Amino acid sequence: MLRILCFCVFIVHSLSVPAEVYSEGNDCVIGELAQEIASYKDVVERILEYTTNGAFKGKTYDELAKFVDKFGARPSGSNSLEESIDYMIELSRQEHLDDITTEELEVPHWVRGHEKILMMRPRLKNIALLGLGTSVSTPPEGITADVVVVSSFDKLAEISDDEIKGRIVLFDAAYTTYGETVVYRSQGATKAAEKGAVACLIKSITPFSINSPHTGSQHYDGNVTKIPTAAISLEDADLLRRLYDRNEKIVLKIKMSSRFNTKISRNTLVDLKGTEHPEKLVIVSGHIDSWDVGQGAMDDGGGLFVSWAAPVVLKRLNLIPKRTVRSIFWTSEELGLIGAIDYEQRHRNESHNINFIMESDEGTFSPRGLAVAGTQKARCIVAEILKLFTSIDASTFVEESRPGSDITVIVEKGIPGASLLNANEKYFWYHHSEGDTLNVENPAELDLCTGFWTAVAYIIADLSSDIPR
Amino acid sequence: MLRILCFCVFIVHSLSVPAEVYSEGNDCVIGELAQEIASYKDVVERILEYTTNGAFKGKTYDELAKFVDKFGARPSGSNSLEESIDYMIELSRQEHLDDITTEELEVPHWVRGHEKILMMRPRLKNIALLGLGTSVSTPPEGITADVVVVSSFDKLAEISDDEIKGRIVLFDAAYTTYGETVVYRSQGATKAAEKGAVACLIKSITPFSINSPHTGSQHYDGNVTKIPTAAISLEDADLLRRLYDRNEKIVLKIKMSSRFNTKISRNTLVDLKGTEHPEKLVIVSGHIDSWDVGQGAMDDGGGLFVSWAAPVVLKRLNLIPKRTVRSIFWTSEELGLIGAIDYEQRHRNESHNINFIMESDEGTFSPRGLAVAGTQKARCIVAEILKLFTSIDASTFVEESRPGSDITVIVEKGIPGASLLNANEKYFWYHHSEGDTLNVENPAELDLCTGFWTAVAYIIADLSSDIPR
Repeated sequence: MLRILCFCVFIVHSLSVPAEVYSEGNDCVIGELAQEIASYKDVVERILEYTTNGAFKGKTYDELAKFVDKFGARPSGSNSLEESIDYMIELSRQEHLDDITTEELEVPHWVRGHEKILMMRPRLKNIALLGLGTSVSTPPEGITADVVVVSSFDKLAEISDDEIKGRIVLFDAAYTTYGETVVYRSQGATKAAEKGAVACLIKSITPFSINSPHTGSQHYDGNVTKIPTAAISLEDADLLRRLYDRNEKIVLKIKMSSRFNTKISRNTLVDLKGTEHPEKLVIVSGHIDSWDVGQGAMDDGGGLFVSWAAPVVLKRLNLIPKRTVRSIFWTSEELGLIGAIDYEQRHRNESHNINFIMESDEGTFSPRGLAVAGTQKARCIVAEILKLFTSIDASTFVEESRPGSDITVIVEKGIPGASLLNANEKYFWYHHSEGDTLNVENPAELDLCTGFWTAVAYIIADLSSDIPR
Repeated sequence: MLRILCFCVFIVHSLSVPAEVYSEGNDCVIGELAQEIASYKDVVERILEYTTNGAFKGKTYDELAKFVDKFGARPSGSNSLEESIDYMIELSRQEHLDDITTEELEVPHWVRGHEKILMMRPRLKNIALLGLGTSVSTPPEGITADVVVVSSFDKLAEISDDEIKGRIVLFDAAYTTYGETVVYRSQGATKAAEKGAVACLIKSITPFSINSPHTGSQHYDGNVTKIPTAAISLEDADLLRRLYDRNEKIVLKIKMSSRFNTKISRNTLVDLKGTEHPEKLVIVSGHIDSWDVGQGAMDDGGGLFVSWAAPVVLKRLNLIPKRTVRSIFWTSEELGLIGAIDYEQRHRNESHNINFIMESDEGTFSPRGLAVAGTQKARCIVAEILKLFTSIDASTFVEESRPGSDITVIVEKGIPGASLLNANEKYFWYHHSEGDTLNVENPAELDLCTGFWTAVAYIIADLSSDIPR
């Protein structure tokens, strides 16, 4: 996942009198649609039974395991990513999902080379690091410079340019939320370079660490000198902070190398064609690329596989809805939602056909519900659907203006959509680190996610009326 | 800490009639000594107030921080260990503790060199590792061989020698307790070599991981070929297990180098001489050496500093007990209790003077009480003392035949002793890994440990009668 925004809770009250969907303040009045939604109770139970106790039990985890063990990390532009796309197409075909389209696009290909930070003073010590995506290399001999430790952009601004020039800036902002703290990763190098720093380090964007650095994307603003930038572990950042506060002279030698070019990759669209309105789409999605560390099992292997599973389960159960259920495997999410941006541009003229768009990119732990964007009317319908998932404790409705990661590109055009809410309290312990492996995933939780994801998509795709805009 | 054994709970009932200490089944009858122990209530409160709210508040953490930040890891035989010993002597002198003895001894000096494991088949992947202490090197070109994954020594025994010969054995025993599981680290290489393996890997001895390998000691039995041996992360061990169970051919290339010789190090004895029986000793202790990863802040920086603090706090408060309180900083614990073995041999003729010996080497999280070895009479007295610590929830008494790590060498000679019980549920998350840093430690918890440790040592050193044997 590239980013997460804050949620605000939206309370839904249901009244069941009038026939038309309308909203009255924060109250939902969806009339006969409430009965229609309630009528899907048996289908929901059938799907959940199939994924948690039937032939599909454990399948999502097992397929995810084979996939991440075979390909490992799948960074944008890599051969492993393209091979993993081929594999997912074949896996879908094995499930008799033959309506598959790939759409080629140019993607960034940033390749990490050798990376090393040695603390030279006050004593010799290796510092664990991960260069940030798109970071430039150091000169071959490395950069050796003093360190200035600052906790925020405001603190940096208080220091004169003379004191920053020629030095390495370490941002050690305390983790609050990912959304708040990630700004140091995405903009740190630019802010430090503006004041003349020769390199920028950040304290990893995570609440927990076993000396584990976390990479991620960053962006150089147009006018600044591009300086090398990397994340270090909480432990090493705190060590440097303590030494700095004791007025110790800290000298680091940083050597980093990387290559950066472009490659061709593909978005993959797997359609289960609708019976009545095949042109209308309910999209379920996750991204198939990952960072170049760990296995990308959590970010976003889990989201990829629950979205792959949705049309598979419906096909197997012969539950073919009125509208098309399209599963999309986005490419190059981590380097800037590149696949989603291409899709939005390519399909802009037919965007009226997207009835609803869903993404799972914030973990596939136990499902809790949905974070939903859309008009009040749209949200009322989704909230009503969520009431069918009380048995698995997945009825939570949260209003979110830009849910998901890739799909924000589409949702911000006014198309209703949702992101999977799940019990992801430890998500950022592993995110973008070597710890993002299959060990984070749980078969029973994935079964619940698959059942929930599939059932929600089916109901929305099968309702008598579209999700209103 | 080198090892931990299992505890068995021992219930103490106190009756307060007779004058003599005796035991009756599991019941304690300690007579007037109960009143005498109760009379230390004010002293306990004074010490706890001083360490948690007075001038010593935060001091243990601050001194530990300066120490581990200055020296980092302090492996047996290293210069950093010897310099850190000099530093602790000077730090004690600054507290006007001038009765300091160092005792030289020969210690192992195992130095980790370059270490790398590359999975060659079924795909290229780096495997995170830490060589185990005393492991031999691979040939310079490395060892390239197939992997056999076994979950136990019994499973290994079921496989023919022909299937093991020339291969790399990975033991992936599931973590239950440290005491049960660590046998794969200490004996794995020997067992694998006996069947002709060319290298031995173990799944790290930990219940939790962010791709973090854990080193530790291991031992080659006399007759076997010494083969290289290392710990890999839970995640990589589980990956290899899954591939193996899918009948994938797994080929690893292992390169490891190390040097092994001996050096001279020192145990350090800091005495606060007793007023009435200076020859009699109550020993508080921790080990000053660490593994060569992380900072050794938890193992055993915390134990070292609470033991350093005990005579310091007593001296500052002018609480000089009847017997001598001796703080010992053991050297070379991690390579086999080398310092403690030397001390026991050197002081065997005067061991009757050790009234009680304490060690903290299982964490310095919130103190909970003591794990105690000794006769029933000895345990009854300690249990009575622990009743004075209900206010800080540190009254738990556990019977343990071999408490601590270093001090087992002395306790097994029949000398009563105890190890610090503390809220160390996550101890093995960090143990012997790069995660053993100051971030694991907490100032308020260290203040409680220091107060508890100091007060227990004071009372035992000041009682009218010795702890009976």
